[in-house]
Amino acid sequence: MITVLVVGTGNVATHLYNAFFNIDNINVSQISSRNLKNIPNTDVTIIAVSDDAIAEVSSKINNPFVVHTSGSISMKNLQNSTRKGVFYMLQTFTKEKKVDFKKVPFCLEAEHKDDLKILKKLAKTLGNSIYTIDSNQRKALHVAAVFVNNFTNHLYKIGHDICLTHNVPFKVLHPLIQETSNKIMSLPPIKAQTGPAIRNDTKTIKNHLTLLEEQQQKIYKILTKSIQDSLNR
Amino acid sequence: MITVLVVGTGNVATHLYNAFFNIDNINVSQISSRNLKNIPNTDVTIIAVSDDAIAEVSSKINNPFVVHTSGSISMKNLQNSTRKGVFYMLQTFTKEKKVDFKKVPFCLEAEHKDDLKILKKLAKTLGNSIYTIDSNQRKALHVAAVFVNNFTNHLYKIGHDICLTHNVPFKVLHPLIQETSNKIMSLPPIKAQTGPAIRNDTKTIKNHLTLLEEQQQKIYKILTKSIQDSLNR
Repeated sequence: MITVLVVGTGNVATHLYNAFFNIDNINVSQISSRNLKNIPNTDVTIIAVSDDAIAEVSSKINNPFVVHTSGSISMKNLQNSTRKGVFYMLQTFTKEKKVDFKKVPFCLEAEHKDDLKILKKLAKTLGNSIYTIDSNQRKALHVAAVFVNNFTNHLYKIGHDICLTHNVPFKVLHPLIQETSNKIMSLPPIKAQTGPAIRNDTKTIKNHLTLLEEQQQKIYKILTKSIQDSLNR
Repeated sequence: MITVLVVGTGNVATHLYNAFFNIDNINVSQISSRNLKNIPNTDVTIIAVSDDAIAEVSSKINNPFVVHTSGSISMKNLQNSTRKGVFYMLQTFTKEKKVDFKKVPFCLEAEHKDDLKILKKLAKTLGNSIYTIDSNQRKALHVAAVFVNNFTNHLYKIGHDICLTHNVPFKVLHPLIQETSNKIMSLPPIKAQTGPAIRNDTKTIKNHLTLLEEQQQKIYKILTKSIQDSLNR
């Protein structure tokens, strides 16, 4: 039996609490970070609050082993005087949408080997993809995630805008979007690159630019240049 | 019975020929665009050659109805003196990989209504998603495809580079990439946007920039600005 306390009431905290609640060998409780009285003493205390609140919340907790769930905050940012660790799940959590934890990569870190073992044990009750990732690696992962998730979604948004402007249904692009994301499962992205930029098809590039608004043009140009530069390395 | 001639020997031509070959009511043949003697006379002639060659190849064909398969070339670019049309499939075709035509959107155009009907009939033998798209719409679609496919793949490549530099396995990001592309099936991309840019989390943005190379920084900045500008519209 592992006893777990989840501190926080946001998306990550609630999804995590609900998931642990269904596991036999885990005894989980949840409290709000605004009410830190009578804190249950547990084996693992998971602080799932906004990045800015982690230091303050952790400073008020005396439980033996405290971890946070942030991708961009260092383990040392925890201000508890007891043992520290990180329990980072690299996935976007949406309130309404059920999380399939089997597909979530768990990125774990701890000051002590035995604590890392506990975190692994805990993660294994929910998922299959478990990685030991230190604070520097996690920071890099977080930036990489911004590119492949946040920025990619913004490119979808630009595609959506172009379709709107020219009266084309965006759903025509759905299968291509799926195919593009599926390809990287079997092919490194550098080898999956296609399109006018990598072919250096200046005629098509010129034609495309005439169809775009100013900011779309800037983005088109810088990404085209970056694709072409990647060829010359 | 529809008789079809595929002109060309590249990826699109070969995938298309193989697909039609298995359809009962279609009689398909294939020729190289370099050998335009004894051209079989068919109901539909599909020119599947590189964009630059479309005008010249079509000028040498006297068959009654000639279409090309390009996303970026106008129907009027065809130089046959007979009827014209476009049979554009919006998907990336890779030589080694089998194409699931059921998932391919067919974007069709023709000068005459009856020809459009023939193209629809032809497309329906292979696929389910069939759209009537004129040359201007198709050009817009082609630019939008560059954003959601070619540029998105390049963002994956940058994510891959960051992982390499910081010694993190790229596959940790695979589930996030899948989730991001799945989201747009049910949510418009503007509503699916998450991350430091849209939260205006200047601290995280600053931290991220320190981890990036010069060109990655430029791309990070311009996409962050574009995300933030999209809020103010």
